[in-house]
Amino acid sequence: MSSRAIQDRYPEQTSHCYGCGYSNAAGLGLKSHWHGSAATATFTPDARFTAIPGYVYGGLIASLIDCHGTATAAAAACQAAGNDPAKDELPRFVTAALKVDYRLPTPLGVELALRGEPREIGARKVVVAIELRAGDELCATGEVIAVLLPERLRGGE
Amino acid sequence: MSSRAIQDRYPEQTSHCYGCGYSNAAGLGLKSHWHGSAATATFTPDARFTAIPGYVYGGLIASLIDCHGTATAAAAACQAAGNDPAKDELPRFVTAALKVDYRLPTPLGVELALRGEPREIGARKVVVAIELRAGDELCATGEVIAVLLPERLRGGE
Repeated sequence: MSSRAIQDRYPEQTSHCYGCGYSNAAGLGLKSHWHGSAATATFTPDARFTAIPGYVYGGLIASLIDCHGTATAAAAACQAAGNDPAKDELPRFVTAALKVDYRLPTPLGVELALRGEPREIGARKVVVAIELRAGDELCATGEVIAVLLPERLRGGE
Repeated sequence: MSSRAIQDRYPEQTSHCYGCGYSNAAGLGLKSHWHGSAATATFTPDARFTAIPGYVYGGLIASLIDCHGTATAAAAACQAAGNDPAKDELPRFVTAALKVDYRLPTPLGVELALRGEPREIGARKVVVAIELRAGDELCATGEVIAVLLPERLRGGE
């Protein structure tokens, strides 16, 4: 496992994401780690993120899947280009399309574990399948179609 | 237009949603209004909800679509049962599946307008198509498969 999270190696100009950017102090701060063929992350939602009492809000689950998907895409595309996701520059992907299937109500107050696996890897488009578990229970699955952030939106002139 | 938002008529036991529940003081507080065949809502994200500077975080867009979808489903199912969504009890729907297509980067700092139209209406399952616009620009579209909240999760014994 690389010691630094994927998101902590995004360029500063694209590090403001509410879900995972190190420059967003009010954000969720999701951290994803690459393991060669998949990425993992954990997150424990606080009580704010209630759907109905005792269960996690679906929008938060979509948000975690979104950010973990683009992080997985960044590491996978970096590696597919012959580079090292732990050291080399990571391309910044954003979400073009997101699907989430809510399979079970997701319990609040426990750590949620995300796993993302790339299904298709191109230089400009990566499709990632995501699983979100609470303990042994598969609570949600998702698919993220991630695309390379257009150059005009990368900032940092 | 009904004067009270759909979400403000949810039963108290299911009013804690981070996205739209009146009992969640830390939440987004989305309010949807039913117009007979469609529901609308508006929301102006603050700067917390940045994706990249100047643009709205995709997870927030998914969250708005999620809550607006379940609200549209509640009103549509109520009406389809021969009741009045402005006065009668609203069934509480939750999201079984969510799809979002991010068509354009969504600008921060402007009011976003959501429109939800039911595509299939059953007593226990409603499919809703959602459009999210910033001014004239169609920034995102979504589909919410909403299902009636199981009785065991409705609380309020």
